[in-house]
Amino acid sequence: MGGDFGPRSIVQASLACLSATPSLHLTLVGQPSLLEELIHGQSAADRARLTIVAASEVITMDEKPAQALRGKPDSSMRVALELLRDGKVQACVSAGNTGALMALSRFVLKTLPGIDRPAMVAAIPTQTGYCQLLDLGANVDCSAEHLLQFAVMGSVAAQTLGIARPRVALLNIGTEDIKGNQQVKLAATLLQAARGINYIGFIEGDGLYRGEADVVVCDGFVGNILLKSSEGLATMIAARIEALFKKNFASRAVGALALPLMKRLQADLAPARHNGASFLGLQGIVVKSHGSAGVQGFQSAIQRALIEIQENLPERLHGRLEELLS
Amino acid sequence: MGGDFGPRSIVQASLACLSATPSLHLTLVGQPSLLEELIHGQSAADRARLTIVAASEVITMDEKPAQALRGKPDSSMRVALELLRDGKVQACVSAGNTGALMALSRFVLKTLPGIDRPAMVAAIPTQTGYCQLLDLGANVDCSAEHLLQFAVMGSVAAQTLGIARPRVALLNIGTEDIKGNQQVKLAATLLQAARGINYIGFIEGDGLYRGEADVVVCDGFVGNILLKSSEGLATMIAARIEALFKKNFASRAVGALALPLMKRLQADLAPARHNGASFLGLQGIVVKSHGSAGVQGFQSAIQRALIEIQENLPERLHGRLEELLS
Repeated sequence: MGGDFGPRSIVQASLACLSATPSLHLTLVGQPSLLEELIHGQSAADRARLTIVAASEVITMDEKPAQALRGKPDSSMRVALELLRDGKVQACVSAGNTGALMALSRFVLKTLPGIDRPAMVAAIPTQTGYCQLLDLGANVDCSAEHLLQFAVMGSVAAQTLGIARPRVALLNIGTEDIKGNQQVKLAATLLQAARGINYIGFIEGDGLYRGEADVVVCDGFVGNILLKSSEGLATMIAARIEALFKKNFASRAVGALALPLMKRLQADLAPARHNGASFLGLQGIVVKSHGSAGVQGFQSAIQRALIEIQENLPERLHGRLEELLS
Repeated sequence: MGGDFGPRSIVQASLACLSATPSLHLTLVGQPSLLEELIHGQSAADRARLTIVAASEVITMDEKPAQALRGKPDSSMRVALELLRDGKVQACVSAGNTGALMALSRFVLKTLPGIDRPAMVAAIPTQTGYCQLLDLGANVDCSAEHLLQFAVMGSVAAQTLGIARPRVALLNIGTEDIKGNQQVKLAATLLQAARGINYIGFIEGDGLYRGEADVVVCDGFVGNILLKSSEGLATMIAARIEALFKKNFASRAVGALALPLMKRLQADLAPARHNGASFLGLQGIVVKSHGSAGVQGFQSAIQRALIEIQENLPERLHGRLEELLS
């Protein structure tokens, strides 16, 4: 029921995913009459794999997490997470209020042993491939211990994506030991002592894009600002290039060559917006689709949840955490 | 004597500035024999406007600020700042250790009344022009009061650049009141109550590049990471476009059209590297050239100092601070 555009695009994305993936079963949680109306006319075959579960309340986008936790026992978000906890579904995808989703996920699903706070992670494109950046905004005011936990989770997530020995770095304002705030200096000490993590030290904002690490760890405030400023910058550069190609008559034809690249890059740079971000560290799979995601964005988030189900991400995370943190 | 390339490019930049600006007098502070060797052969006319002041010590790039303060009374950086304090020069430009320059500036020059900590500011390109972003890395672990002071200083700096009523925003991970860490929420409360500041609320990373504010305020940790990740991203995009234009034979000729734009944009996006960043809030003009700045970069930093002298920036800042903070 959440997201900037409400359930309409979520239902559309769900129907598209059902058509594309014959083994998929989806459960929509929300107000049945509204949802029925939106899926009206769907073919009988796909309809059989689509279940509606009633939830009478909706958490709004500006609601405080504490309010969402205490005040709305029958919210669509909470009911969906309870279905996941009770094993009736295998993953939960939401485009709703991030803070509320995080608070409810922690409360309903609980975190994995050794993890205080789940983190949001997404793949950021670099000059050499991708890096997993976390946290992207689920946690502000993190301690050094939280950053250590993010590092462990990010490392394991990168391993499930096929990187044997992920290079893990802490985002900082310099690479020398004396640089940074107290939080990041202390986290470096903890990471140096951590077993089983290929900690390579501090990384700066430009080093991230040069591809110097596979996993980059920071608190949610910094990660969110890095992500969103990158989206904004990519958009600005695309606009400037578009303007350049329009200005010059001779170049207009060639603009067609550069623009698709820029568009793809923009999508690449907005992974949280386009593909969803995963919550790591929960006893269950939760994917957060961006609030302003359209139909395609929400489809990508469902796809991501499917991959995490196939990869058994929480189980693998649990196993590695026991080894690493014990 | 500082910077990643030592005094060679600084001397070259100084000589170029002397030729370009007949009214300019420069004082080089450092080891006289080395400096004399580097300026050897300069024409007599320009040489008359170039003074060398001896300083026997050099602060290295990885030295701790406290060490620089206590251990080296005759460092080139300190002697240069003392010349400024004593009115023998009108501005100080350095490519050295940022933390040491900040600590020594505060100690030697003192801050303006009402300012606890100077901030580093540079102009960041946006879709509609430029915004002044501060702090860029001089201060980590800032309090809400420091962010308020940065806002006041940034607003005044933008005014001296010709913006009558600068829109001042706080960088945050959302625009709703409930978003962000404690520091930024408290700073918002302080800014709402501050007189004479056109505070427009929170801004996100993408809003900054959309040009939604003239002054964007954040702590030095966040600002530095935003700046450097933007530099890294711009470089990555330029590399990808270059590769695209090289791949396709027909497009190679047109690549020549797009690349100069990308190069200029990269320079735009690296204002601290290319043009230097100003320290605001001191009783004197200090411009920090990036450690890895080449000859052109250091020239730009000298130019920036010249403008600040012409604009009487510290005086104007002092006057406005008295009005705003009294």
